[in-house]
Amino acid sequence: MPELTAAAAAHPNIALIKYWGNRDDALRLPANGSLSMNLGGLETRTRVTFDPALEADHLILNDAVAASGELARVSAFLDTVRQLAGIPHRAGVESWNNFPTGAGIASSAAAFAALSLAASAAAGLDLSEKDLSRLARRGSGSACRSVPGGYVEWLPGSSDLDSYAVSIAPPEHWALADCITVVSAGPKPLGSSQGHRLASSSPFQKARVAGAPRRLAQARRAILSRDFDALAQVIELDSNLMHAVMLTGQPALLYFLPGSIAVMQAVLAWRGEGLPVAYTLDAGPNVHVLCPAAEAESVRQRLARLPGVLRVLVALPGGQARWIHPPA
Amino acid sequence: MPELTAAAAAHPNIALIKYWGNRDDALRLPANGSLSMNLGGLETRTRVTFDPALEADHLILNDAVAASGELARVSAFLDTVRQLAGIPHRAGVESWNNFPTGAGIASSAAAFAALSLAASAAAGLDLSEKDLSRLARRGSGSACRSVPGGYVEWLPGSSDLDSYAVSIAPPEHWALADCITVVSAGPKPLGSSQGHRLASSSPFQKARVAGAPRRLAQARRAILSRDFDALAQVIELDSNLMHAVMLTGQPALLYFLPGSIAVMQAVLAWRGEGLPVAYTLDAGPNVHVLCPAAEAESVRQRLARLPGVLRVLVALPGGQARWIHPPA
Repeated sequence: MPELTAAAAAHPNIALIKYWGNRDDALRLPANGSLSMNLGGLETRTRVTFDPALEADHLILNDAVAASGELARVSAFLDTVRQLAGIPHRAGVESWNNFPTGAGIASSAAAFAALSLAASAAAGLDLSEKDLSRLARRGSGSACRSVPGGYVEWLPGSSDLDSYAVSIAPPEHWALADCITVVSAGPKPLGSSQGHRLASSSPFQKARVAGAPRRLAQARRAILSRDFDALAQVIELDSNLMHAVMLTGQPALLYFLPGSIAVMQAVLAWRGEGLPVAYTLDAGPNVHVLCPAAEAESVRQRLARLPGVLRVLVALPGGQARWIHPPA
Repeated sequence: MPELTAAAAAHPNIALIKYWGNRDDALRLPANGSLSMNLGGLETRTRVTFDPALEADHLILNDAVAASGELARVSAFLDTVRQLAGIPHRAGVESWNNFPTGAGIASSAAAFAALSLAASAAAGLDLSEKDLSRLARRGSGSACRSVPGGYVEWLPGSSDLDSYAVSIAPPEHWALADCITVVSAGPKPLGSSQGHRLASSSPFQKARVAGAPRRLAQARRAILSRDFDALAQVIELDSNLMHAVMLTGQPALLYFLPGSIAVMQAVLAWRGEGLPVAYTLDAGPNVHVLCPAAEAESVRQRLARLPGVLRVLVALPGGQARWIHPPA
């Protein structure tokens, strides 16, 4: 019997056109298509070993035994892999992030992208990028966007079969930088999975979703033509639309912190002065400030001086999820 | 010929259900009905003298000659009064606020309520409360709510004739306090009149307006039954809905400052601990924190300690616009 082990790495991603709300929560079929950039330099490495001797799955995150809720989510995901591969064995999963925990970088996208690749390979499956992306989506919606490389679009699809992400441009297409501006290292008030379920409680979600294809097309065009101004306009609008939906659901989700607003106001003022910068916030208080890579160091220094800013990490476009050998 | 002079005083008001966007910008017919509380203790006093000897209107605000834009707006308003009264004379207008300029309290509501009463009386008109409210609306939409006393509802109406405000409960009905938490004394990025014109550029305005009658009914019920918890829920939602519309218009209006969010987050946390407090923000960064009057001093002290808070003014429910004798 072959050794049922494999390891993989994947980057987190920042959504430029947001995913918020599902048509199907169980399958994580999104209410609208979305678009993201992988965050190079930041990555999750994951090793999976299916072992007939194990009585239960176990999960080590950053060298510590994971909480039961995290294990349950991974175990449910492994069930999908086991079913696909037709194997019954429990698995041991070890995973490390090279970016600081509590840096406010959503880790589930990188985690489930790396896990999809490692677990499917360990189970003897040889999945296409499309099927890996579909699989990653089952673990965490935005994880499907961490499977392909560079600038990535999640095609919302209408079923499990056609909801997956594709690269629209490789990392080297456009040297943008994401200056990840950390204003809180604390846990989020609400996990994204629960947040997605609240989306439809806002009277604004329907209009947000209805306009998403148009904004997605604008953002895709801006990326393909490397038009920073056009990208800036549409990603800030799209981020504002998502946070407006969050703010008006029941219960309301107010992810902004004082430092978030300090950064957003500064970005607006700087762009007014001619600096090419734009903000976007995922489901949390930290602000991703996009700019051409050539401006990143200067923007990083400006951001670091703002009140409420704890640290700034700079990421350039990252590649696709990949196997790593030998297993970490 | 009688002396064509009169003086009046009116309070500003805080909207609990918001006015944002007009069906008719010239007549200031609002997209939806709204509900407010007059802010007792704070007031504008205004004296108007129509004088056949004057060649042009003139305007003194807080003992200084007003800027030309302010004079033009008042002069256009006086034209309406002159037309109603059938008099041609230009007028001298003097107006004083007893609340600090730059305290972030919208002054146009109190200003045009006091001006409506003073100017109509000076012109020899004896208008009903309804007609005074209609007239004040022409100067500044929310001014129509500063004409009646206490808790006030603006019936949106369908024409100039039926768009006016009425008192739904006198000031003594319920001793609420508005702890006006000033986080910026600077001018607003955009005046409200221009802001109202942007409302329809948000994809969310239509849904906000559609739900307004229901929220207004909830707020009215909460006030009439003195149900603070119910009022807290609906006024925070309504404030969030308006700021979400502002944030998603084109251009976006981000009125929040870091201090606004510090106060909003604190209010949410305190209410979670059982303190009866709720926030609402007009078209600006300052936060109005409502609470039962018995809690006001303790709430004021808590607010004053938050980062970014410059000062806290406390207002109890105020009465209707009134004549003052002799003219100031």
